[in-house]
Amino acid sequence: MTRFKLTIEYEGPPFSGWQRQENLPTVQGILEETFYDFLGSPVTIWGSGRTDAGVHAQGQVAHVDILKPYEPLAIQGAMNKRLRNVPISIVNVEEVSSDFHARFSAKKRSYEYVILNRRAPSALEEARAWWVIKPLSITAMTDAASVLIGCHDFSSFRDSRCQAKSPLKTLDHLFIEKEGEKILVRASARSFLHHQVRNIIGTLKRIGEGAWAPEKMQEILEAKDRRVAGPTAPAHGLYLTKIDF
Amino acid sequence: MTRFKLTIEYEGPPFSGWQRQENLPTVQGILEETFYDFLGSPVTIWGSGRTDAGVHAQGQVAHVDILKPYEPLAIQGAMNKRLRNVPISIVNVEEVSSDFHARFSAKKRSYEYVILNRRAPSALEEARAWWVIKPLSITAMTDAASVLIGCHDFSSFRDSRCQAKSPLKTLDHLFIEKEGEKILVRASARSFLHHQVRNIIGTLKRIGEGAWAPEKMQEILEAKDRRVAGPTAPAHGLYLTKIDF
Repeated sequence: MTRFKLTIEYEGPPFSGWQRQENLPTVQGILEETFYDFLGSPVTIWGSGRTDAGVHAQGQVAHVDILKPYEPLAIQGAMNKRLRNVPISIVNVEEVSSDFHARFSAKKRSYEYVILNRRAPSALEEARAWWVIKPLSITAMTDAASVLIGCHDFSSFRDSRCQAKSPLKTLDHLFIEKEGEKILVRASARSFLHHQVRNIIGTLKRIGEGAWAPEKMQEILEAKDRRVAGPTAPAHGLYLTKIDF
Repeated sequence: MTRFKLTIEYEGPPFSGWQRQENLPTVQGILEETFYDFLGSPVTIWGSGRTDAGVHAQGQVAHVDILKPYEPLAIQGAMNKRLRNVPISIVNVEEVSSDFHARFSAKKRSYEYVILNRRAPSALEEARAWWVIKPLSITAMTDAASVLIGCHDFSSFRDSRCQAKSPLKTLDHLFIEKEGEKILVRASARSFLHHQVRNIIGTLKRIGEGAWAPEKMQEILEAKDRRVAGPTAPAHGLYLTKIDF
């Protein structure tokens, strides 16, 4: 038996998220079915994190145990050939030791959120970015973001369905950058609460458009109450970019 | 009567190119129908250039004459509202003088070609970039590209259906850049022959993968024979990025 680490890219909107669900197209479900078709026997895929429905990934990581010996490139080729009509691609396969675990060995998860900040809707990025018409202030957003760096109780940004034992998380980076008409927000942490990134983005957007002062971020964080933060930003602006081990 | 300059973004694959055609969805055709729906009277849209079927645009420019007085923002809003289910967006509208002509006043046309150069197919960029597996040498491509800068007879890169009077064109820029797994080729000129950019890209790809030496570009150019150059690169990697006036 050999354990393989898979790096996976996928489009968000066609799928009901990462996690396998009965009768719904999910990335994990499709990968398990495709492995079954390839190997002739069932496997379980373990992902680094469950992305929500609509969230894209360039660097999702999963591991899988395979009984027969295979070359990593043979696995990649066999899988991508079977996935050619599905917006899922195996971008890398490597052999890892049996103590590697995609979820538990992950040391850092990085996300990018894309906002298209302009008057006109997008013809090319419609399902790839959150279209925000009102001009956003990068300065105000950056000031507010700095409050969130470090270890905090993130209850104000936590979805009610979150299964984490504790609301304490350490946010390593939260960086906001303007790139033409786009605003990119990059966030990384060892792990995140359910909807944490999208709830932070929804709050930063309210601050960026001037509805709230940057100083309000401190109050929101300290309130530890989901109701005081901004709305959840849409899934289709979010990308799981990288997992570090 | 007022003349308006429109800047237009669109996705390539859903359309049979820019130019109006009987019973086929084209960008010009859809814009003319949408204006008819908005104004209640027919208009003609004049584009800066006819993009081929499958070619994307971020910065196509067109002009249109409108009889009744309208604010540019009102035109943009009315059009984008009607285009909300179509991957075409009017990104800017401005009033121009009646001697402005989208096609004849254009001084520079800029294109970008996107190659995804990696082993794995793309889940996120499938219809947005040319997937090339074999690693391409940027150095070889850049050496070969330098031969094409300036005024030349581009017959070797000219489609047989090209309607230009002369094969002489002045290529101002041809710049190749690596950005992660992507190779971006930027080309600009006052005007291009039919398929000129895609035929140059198809030739640069052959040189980049080592099938041909960079020196062969000079021979190809001098041959003035379409049969000696490389194949036409696919349309879905090409973007009309900007028109300068």
